[in-house]
Amino acid sequence: MKEQVITDLKKILGPRWVDDDLERVEQYSKDHTLQSYGLVAPAPAGENLVVKPGNTREVSEVMRYAYARNLPVIPRGAGTALASNSVPSQSSIILSLERMNRVLEVDDVNLVVTCEAAVSLGDLIGYLKGKDKLYFPLHPGDEGAQVGGMVAMNAGGVRAVRHGVMRDQIRGLEVVLPDGEIIQTGGKMGKLAKDNAGLNLMQLLIGSEGVLGIITRAMLKVYPEPSYTATLIASFARRSSAFRAVPRLIKEGIMPMAVEYVERDQIITTARDLGKEWPAKEGEGDLIIIMAEKSEDDFYSLANGIDKICTEEGATDILMADSAEEQKEIIEIRSHILPAIEDQIVDSPDITVPRSKLEEILDFLDSLAEKYRTRIPVLAHAGDGNLHTFIIKENGQVPSFYEELKEAMYKKTLELGGTITGEHGIGSLRRGELNLQFSDRELEIMWGIKKVFDPKNLLNPGKKVFPPHTGKNL
Amino acid sequence: MKEQVITDLKKILGPRWVDDDLERVEQYSKDHTLQSYGLVAPAPAGENLVVKPGNTREVSEVMRYAYARNLPVIPRGAGTALASNSVPSQSSIILSLERMNRVLEVDDVNLVVTCEAAVSLGDLIGYLKGKDKLYFPLHPGDEGAQVGGMVAMNAGGVRAVRHGVMRDQIRGLEVVLPDGEIIQTGGKMGKLAKDNAGLNLMQLLIGSEGVLGIITRAMLKVYPEPSYTATLIASFARRSSAFRAVPRLIKEGIMPMAVEYVERDQIITTARDLGKEWPAKEGEGDLIIIMAEKSEDDFYSLANGIDKICTEEGATDILMADSAEEQKEIIEIRSHILPAIEDQIVDSPDITVPRSKLEEILDFLDSLAEKYRTRIPVLAHAGDGNLHTFIIKENGQVPSFYEELKEAMYKKTLELGGTITGEHGIGSLRRGELNLQFSDRELEIMWGIKKVFDPKNLLNPGKKVFPPHTGKNL
Repeated sequence: MKEQVITDLKKILGPRWVDDDLERVEQYSKDHTLQSYGLVAPAPAGENLVVKPGNTREVSEVMRYAYARNLPVIPRGAGTALASNSVPSQSSIILSLERMNRVLEVDDVNLVVTCEAAVSLGDLIGYLKGKDKLYFPLHPGDEGAQVGGMVAMNAGGVRAVRHGVMRDQIRGLEVVLPDGEIIQTGGKMGKLAKDNAGLNLMQLLIGSEGVLGIITRAMLKVYPEPSYTATLIASFARRSSAFRAVPRLIKEGIMPMAVEYVERDQIITTARDLGKEWPAKEGEGDLIIIMAEKSEDDFYSLANGIDKICTEEGATDILMADSAEEQKEIIEIRSHILPAIEDQIVDSPDITVPRSKLEEILDFLDSLAEKYRTRIPVLAHAGDGNLHTFIIKENGQVPSFYEELKEAMYKKTLELGGTITGEHGIGSLRRGELNLQFSDRELEIMWGIKKVFDPKNLLNPGKKVFPPHTGKNL
Repeated sequence: MKEQVITDLKKILGPRWVDDDLERVEQYSKDHTLQSYGLVAPAPAGENLVVKPGNTREVSEVMRYAYARNLPVIPRGAGTALASNSVPSQSSIILSLERMNRVLEVDDVNLVVTCEAAVSLGDLIGYLKGKDKLYFPLHPGDEGAQVGGMVAMNAGGVRAVRHGVMRDQIRGLEVVLPDGEIIQTGGKMGKLAKDNAGLNLMQLLIGSEGVLGIITRAMLKVYPEPSYTATLIASFARRSSAFRAVPRLIKEGIMPMAVEYVERDQIITTARDLGKEWPAKEGEGDLIIIMAEKSEDDFYSLANGIDKICTEEGATDILMADSAEEQKEIIEIRSHILPAIEDQIVDSPDITVPRSKLEEILDFLDSLAEKYRTRIPVLAHAGDGNLHTFIIKENGQVPSFYEELKEAMYKKTLELGGTITGEHGIGSLRRGELNLQFSDRELEIMWGIKKVFDPKNLLNPGKKVFPPHTGKNL
């Protein structure tokens, strides 16, 4: 990055908050995608620069400066994304929001918590703990993820069955536009339950992966804290039975926090890897059902309902873990599935299908694995039809059949009414695959919207949207 | 409308489905706004034409034709809107979706009902009744409202406390774009619980009031049917106590279907107008709390919780109506508040504030009423901070202070973190008021998005979005 730019940005932010140290810039040029899969290479560190504004006004000033000089800017949260969503693909200013990490207010009348962008999920959970008996339910996995990034990515995770995804938690946003203008959605306080004025820019910004604006503040719904929690493990001889049980639960009004499906082989291997033992032994796989209720009555009514339906659908064994320790161990093993195989993975498409199509897509993945003589481990958010599939290396390398297998997986997913990404978004990694899902006209509209917000294409360029009729990496 | 256009459209749709009969066209040129308030005048009937396509392909063909010839098109549902949202302001083709009125599927695994655009809310409720014990919870008031219009308007209503607004019910849409292209959101079946591919056009189309595309089909969430229902009336000596009770209910995890606030004088007068008696007598006003639960246990637990909190907050009397007949009578009286005064009203802004600001805005409205020596009757969706305010005629005419009062109301609303419309949308009626709420840059973005979808500005022109820096009626 040119010396003049560094000097100018130091004037705006103070010298301490502009960093061109090669080693540190390199760290900021990666996200979780790169560290594990290495499919997308960032621009060389020497061409980038890290800036750390301390407040919204400073974010705005940096944007105003960069916009006037046509400098690309990459907004960055915790870098926990999995589709190269914040990796610079050209010489860029990396704008880290890390200093903006305060919880500003817990409003227990409107039930809204106001966070700066870099409040981490873990910090938010900790902050709310015990406070007015309120809590934030979403849990996309990595508690290092930051609120701004979770909004920009429309994060999901295991707990979407009852509460939905990040989109469903947002009352308001403060956003810095590419030209530096600051806007506020959801009214001046970001606390509106209903708003039909104008086109809904907030809904467009949620999940836009930092290509339309920089989320600097988010107003999120909070809920009454559940007092009674437990985790059920229901084992099924066949996964088809497990998948029949899930919609029946929801249809009966039994809404657990989470309904996960794990395959028997994989969860046992994972537990062994941790030096632990998975409590269920029989059958093809288990449903892991996380319950959290406010009253003891509600809790037992829920547990009984789940037990009844799973048994009717042929569960061979149902275990309930209600001590904090047992529950923690189950979640620990479940959460270790990915780390246990991470160094063997080249890619993990998070395809999503209608809940009714889960068995069909899993059968298809089995047939693909057989065809390519590989294995395709899968984690299933069974309540949402959302899969994490893992494409495994061949002799430590990207396998020869990688592109072919991925395309077959996507095509089947789309044929079944699915999407190529339910959670991780498009980033740079899947941008070239958008045309499998969308028509040229749809891509033209998305690209047109990008240009309305960012006519110079400076904010997180090369991500999320792809212009139609061209392979150009804009 | 030119003879050639009539001839051409008859070729596309068949002669029966193109109507230029003056009297009938005039009916289609009005909506509920005009009938009651008369603030916006439609283009003369002689300049318009009504077409009634029977399926999505025909909607697409009409749009393709109109787009090629630069003819404005006004999509039309039931015409129950309240802000001139489907009134032609220039010579137009009025595209009524009325023939597309079939419920196509109830999917009890994904819990999704697929409706054509003109399925009315009443028909949907009737269709689902008893079917697989599923139901659709939203109730924006008029059961004649059609699904397509409810999506285009992001309808709300009394039952948003538990289930949210229309936006929260939508899994997928089929939409015809201004140039006739058909797109499908939420995957090919419109049944996805998670989708992060591309910019979310579906969220942008919801609530876009027919300026970006024509909703031809909607895939909506359905829920387990509640078996136990009752309506509580809690009377409070002061409305401030009522408004303190509401957030406490929600914070305790007590989520009724609806929490309405009615003022004592008004509800008593309304009941009298119907020749009935309102059961509560004492205090400034009542909370009407609608409960609907799946099990008897849940129901009693909810009712006890409500009773306890309302009593603690000073409710002087709590009545429970649990027979179908009593409940119907309460809802009938509550629903009659608007009809009872409709001929006295010139306008009914549906301002919305954060729940915590309800009392402040109501006190302000009282002071406004006093200042202008008028009364401002109010209905409050107290759980959502959403008010229906009624500006009353002066000697049967638009009062001299109308503009002044409205502007003061809007400014205070915005100052308190509110929006000028929580439910009714912008239409033609409030388009000129968007600049009170949004900056020029925001309006520029909205207008830019409109142009991306509809470069010729032919679809429902003159509604919803307003170009910045100009008073031109585009």
